[in-house]
Amino acid sequence: MRALRLLEWKSEPLLTEVDEPTPGPGQVVVRIGGAGACHSDLHLMDEFEAGVVPWNPPFTLGHENAGWVHALGAGVTGLEVGQPVAVYGPWGCGVCARCRLGIDPYCENPADAPVPGGGGGLGLDGGMAEYELVPDARHIVPLPDGLDPVQAAPLTDAGLTPYHAIRRSWPKLPPGSWAVVIGVGGLGHVGVQILKATTAARVIAVDTRPEALRLAEEYGADLTLLSGAETADEIRRITGRGADVVLDFVGADPTLRLGAAVARTVGDLTIVGIAGGTLPVSYFSVPYEVSIQTTYWGSRPELIEVLDLGARGLVRPKVTTFALDDANTAYQRLREGSLEGRAVVVP
Amino acid sequence: MRALRLLEWKSEPLLTEVDEPTPGPGQVVVRIGGAGACHSDLHLMDEFEAGVVPWNPPFTLGHENAGWVHALGAGVTGLEVGQPVAVYGPWGCGVCARCRLGIDPYCENPADAPVPGGGGGLGLDGGMAEYELVPDARHIVPLPDGLDPVQAAPLTDAGLTPYHAIRRSWPKLPPGSWAVVIGVGGLGHVGVQILKATTAARVIAVDTRPEALRLAEEYGADLTLLSGAETADEIRRITGRGADVVLDFVGADPTLRLGAAVARTVGDLTIVGIAGGTLPVSYFSVPYEVSIQTTYWGSRPELIEVLDLGARGLVRPKVTTFALDDANTAYQRLREGSLEGRAVVVP
Amino acid sequence: MRALRLLEWKSEPLLTEVDEPTPGPGQVVVRIGGAGACHSDLHLMDEFEAGVVPWNPPFTLGHENAGWVHALGAGVTGLEVGQPVAVYGPWGCGVCARCRLGIDPYCENPADAPVPGGGGGLGLDGGMAEYELVPDARHIVPLPDGLDPVQAAPLTDAGLTPYHAIRRSWPKLPPGSWAVVIGVGGLGHVGVQILKATTAARVIAVDTRPEALRLAEEYGADLTLLSGAETADEIRRITGRGADVVLDFVGADPTLRLGAAVARTVGDLTIVGIAGGTLPVSYFSVPYEVSIQTTYWGSRPELIEVLDLGARGLVRPKVTTFALDDANTAYQRLREGSLEGRAVVVP
Amino acid sequence: MRALRLLEWKSEPLLTEVDEPTPGPGQVVVRIGGAGACHSDLHLMDEFEAGVVPWNPPFTLGHENAGWVHALGAGVTGLEVGQPVAVYGPWGCGVCARCRLGIDPYCENPADAPVPGGGGGLGLDGGMAEYELVPDARHIVPLPDGLDPVQAAPLTDAGLTPYHAIRRSWPKLPPGSWAVVIGVGGLGHVGVQILKATTAARVIAVDTRPEALRLAEEYGADLTLLSGAETADEIRRITGRGADVVLDFVGADPTLRLGAAVARTVGDLTIVGIAGGTLPVSYFSVPYEVSIQTTYWGSRPELIEVLDLGARGLVRPKVTTFALDDANTAYQRLREGSLEGRAVVVP
Repeated sequence: MRALRLLEWKSEPLLTEVDEPTPGPGQVVVRIGGAGACHSDLHLMDEFEAGVVPWNPPFTLGHENAGWVHALGAGVTGLEVGQPVAVYGPWGCGVCARCRLGIDPYCENPADAPVPGGGGGLGLDGGMAEYELVPDARHIVPLPDGLDPVQAAPLTDAGLTPYHAIRRSWPKLPPGSWAVVIGVGGLGHVGVQILKATTAARVIAVDTRPEALRLAEEYGADLTLLSGAETADEIRRITGRGADVVLDFVGADPTLRLGAAVARTVGDLTIVGIAGGTLPVSYFSVPYEVSIQTTYWGSRPELIEVLDLGARGLVRPKVTTFALDDANTAYQRLREGSLEGRAVVVP
Repeated sequence: MRALRLLEWKSEPLLTEVDEPTPGPGQVVVRIGGAGACHSDLHLMDEFEAGVVPWNPPFTLGHENAGWVHALGAGVTGLEVGQPVAVYGPWGCGVCARCRLGIDPYCENPADAPVPGGGGGLGLDGGMAEYELVPDARHIVPLPDGLDPVQAAPLTDAGLTPYHAIRRSWPKLPPGSWAVVIGVGGLGHVGVQILKATTAARVIAVDTRPEALRLAEEYGADLTLLSGAETADEIRRITGRGADVVLDFVGADPTLRLGAAVARTVGDLTIVGIAGGTLPVSYFSVPYEVSIQTTYWGSRPELIEVLDLGARGLVRPKVTTFALDDANTAYQRLREGSLEGRAVVVP
Repeated sequence: MRALRLLEWKSEPLLTEVDEPTPGPGQVVVRIGGAGACHSDLHLMDEFEAGVVPWNPPFTLGHENAGWVHALGAGVTGLEVGQPVAVYGPWGCGVCARCRLGIDPYCENPADAPVPGGGGGLGLDGGMAEYELVPDARHIVPLPDGLDPVQAAPLTDAGLTPYHAIRRSWPKLPPGSWAVVIGVGGLGHVGVQILKATTAARVIAVDTRPEALRLAEEYGADLTLLSGAETADEIRRITGRGADVVLDFVGADPTLRLGAAVARTVGDLTIVGIAGGTLPVSYFSVPYEVSIQTTYWGSRPELIEVLDLGARGLVRPKVTTFALDDANTAYQRLREGSLEGRAVVVP
Repeated sequence: MRALRLLEWKSEPLLTEVDEPTPGPGQVVVRIGGAGACHSDLHLMDEFEAGVVPWNPPFTLGHENAGWVHALGAGVTGLEVGQPVAVYGPWGCGVCARCRLGIDPYCENPADAPVPGGGGGLGLDGGMAEYELVPDARHIVPLPDGLDPVQAAPLTDAGLTPYHAIRRSWPKLPPGSWAVVIGVGGLGHVGVQILKATTAARVIAVDTRPEALRLAEEYGADLTLLSGAETADEIRRITGRGADVVLDFVGADPTLRLGAAVARTVGDLTIVGIAGGTLPVSYFSVPYEVSIQTTYWGSRPELIEVLDLGARGLVRPKVTTFALDDANTAYQRLREGSLEGRAVVVP
């Protein structure tokens, strides 16, 4: 079968012929119906090198995958060949406290995982191919009615990541509260939808690009602000007491600073974006009891919930599809910033 | 009556004669049975100056107070003259969302509070006197049987502050979890007791002073570590996956760094100490989803709970008593570090 | 001033002349802009007699009130004459653990409340008059912009009661979950709106009256079912595993039985309606760990939240207004069942 | 190997020779070090008949098991032969929402479980044998240091069941709260220990047998009451406002009635015992918002926590050991009531 593979660090991926995978005991092979092209794949191609992560090329790209069950390994029950499914992307050891609760990205025994701190498309073969080998049936999540693999694929990461960040803050988002979304890109525009679908909080979206703010409005933001020197003051003035929850989908120095400046006492400032910024935290630099944390991806039970939102149209990432032959074009347009929404490769 | 008053910034407090207070509508006068001398009072005397906080001398010191109801203002119900009570120390507006839940130190309308961001002994007259005027009956909390005002007084701050910091982290402290207490001083030694009394977590106490570690052991710490270059590695090795909750009762650069180095994914790193340190937080500088926050004092419902722990002997701050005439001696010994436990002034 | 007063049990209320109230220390007089006529008032007129509740006539009716601050007693701060406000209706002792958290209907010292287990319109003078005396300023909640007293009045009970019942079940209502609303009357139709506004749960509304189901649909119910012998089976079939949360706004034998029959393991079955039914609960009669409880009214912080939903149009009880002269007509039409939505008396 | 097998309903189990099990893909064989004899086994022998549960004899008894890994099936990782382990007893489908969170007893696809609504010793072969076949490696939980299989075995049920019931009520058990344990038998005496180890609640133990109350005292109950006509009044008087949490380990009519009579508003009344009683619940028959629910067994993450309590000696079920040859004696003494604590069969 054909697969888009990263053969070495700092190189373009190549479409090459590889053997079809066969499932071992407890494993599942999925026929891919959609594989999302993620911005982080560009980091893999352009910036990573030996030693940055505990795994290396070659491997097939694609960590946002959905399709149909193709073959079941010995001992797998509860799934049927042909059934439409999503692939839960982060693959942990399955045994530690975090994995037992289904939040594999926080796996505490990475040495016992199929690949430490990775998954399909991240050290192991991913979904930019006709078939993907999933090393444990627990990573397979049936698609609800009304959701096809092309729509489902980006929900497994671009949907799940903001969903996890938002869901953990639900108790701070009752009616009367304010959420601020910084950065309305691939994750942020889904974050706006998730906030509107699951809470009665008011949502302020902040970005440097007017077209991103238009997208935020379309998806239900109550207010959009072009980011600038006055943004923190404006948000303070509008919210009165500050934002109950700030979701920073950028993670650069100025966005972190903005987040800390607008957060309300006892609020949440959650860093999802990995632009590499640093926030100096001291006793008096942020309001009392504002919780600052990063989040990374999400849990398997949360994926089931986000797929439900997708099936009902409450969360709909914008999608542009590409054939497997054109996967490199998808990455090129992603690199150029000329894509609207998520690129999904359909083998 | 006599009162120990701070007459101006950067001065020693003086024992002077002032009028006995009389309660206005909704107010209560408490006859003081115990007034704790807190380390933060030294900051008031030694370091504060105009503009640091939104209030100024003169005022009577003492923000950790307990005693007996002496006089009730018009309209006050549910209290009786002579009843032993503690005074909840932070006095907010009473109307904002935070005050409505009883957590006045996070008051969001400080301009409408009796004094913005303060209370008795912090801008208004406190308890280092024969009587204290409490501006709203809601700040009065009856003492449970078995707790006298001398024991109760330090619980209102040195007890309540660690209690609030710990209670919010209870969900992260089930059996099998680890808590690290950094700094076993006036608050930290109470923190160890609270952790042992209210959770089944294992407790590691860290300090630079062997005698502080002996105190921690006496109060139930499972393990004590003299802080040094190896401390983070030791804690990582002992806990396996890191500490579920770190309580930093110091708040200096090295203690914050230690906290971030030993926290487990999805753990809590709570900064209670105000030594002025700064922790640079970036996406990869702390484990995923470790929540970093400060806490300040606690809530009125929490004070009721901590008084219950005190009445049952589950939390017992060490106390040395001083007559009002000797209050300055208490502060002097506090400044020298020659006090064991909390100094309580008994007028 | 004129007031609609219940002068004795088992009688029609009379519009009579009474003195205007004046506020004592800590009290507030509200000029009434809207006073809701509640079904429970009919019980007061028709069924209650001495000994049923610990209070007796005469008193002015009306326990759902909003208007404008008219006069402030000594010591009241943070409010201004003329300010539009809602009146929090259940008046507890203000001191017990429940009152401290703002949930006065669960007051544990009823003997110390202004009236045990009651409030304005329930033992004390209520809002069916030009002015209402509110015995403690903490019961006054400012109206948010965009909400007038006529709309706000029913939110203080017909809004707050279902809101409290739903809010406590939020953790059981993530995407993918099902809520069942039994009885789409004065409270139930608001319940449907609250569920849709604050969660991503699917909502099934059940009633015996087709017009009630039309109302439920209009307010966003995902599915409506005319109640009958097959209803439990239908809900089991539709939901697959049962309903995560059942809200019974009727509370009769058959509705309780339906609730127990459709609840999912670990779900909630909450009884809000007081039709007097009884559910026999044994180890195998309800699915494992379904929590069964009643709820009564709600808390002050929750009222603030429900007013926010009202101000934004996310929750809009249907309202028919009546002059104070026509208040008895309102009750008559309520008794006949010829009212659509809530009757609000506007003095 | 030898195994104690129930060959048909309403019969005594027989010690017979059966083949040693071999693990299929994903499965594990455990060499048994301890198998608890549970009261519910007597129900299996004495009362069950075809149609009561969806499974039938023959099968080997014993659903509380611990020992050492003996053989690993294909594809099992993270475990080593010889490693001491406990067996998580309820075996669900592994795929449904409940199983994904590790709470298999609430499995929602019982038809896809190894046996519907059962496990080893409950429809499938259990641990009263030299070896037990565990059908999925996820049911294997490593023993912490300091805990041997004989002590661990009863923790998997007699420990886990009260632990789950108590843990879900932790938020209602802060300092100042009261827990009532009704029935200090095999589960109740462990429940008292768990309450004392994990909360600062006061514990009242109620039983009809003075020796059970002595056991409760030994394990830390703050107060013990011989159950009688005055018990509810006594508890009301002692607690003031009622019990925040009632755990009924009996579940008969009078114990349920007692529980409802002493529960505090917003408290929990949890039915763990299966004595078959019925509580009639109506709007005014229990205090407002008391949650009434059953619980059944517990979750895998909770088992890990309860094993930690066991390893540290904070929870120590009393144990009497029996050889496999004497297993029927163990059941006979259990039937007679002449056993103190739990019988554990050591093959």
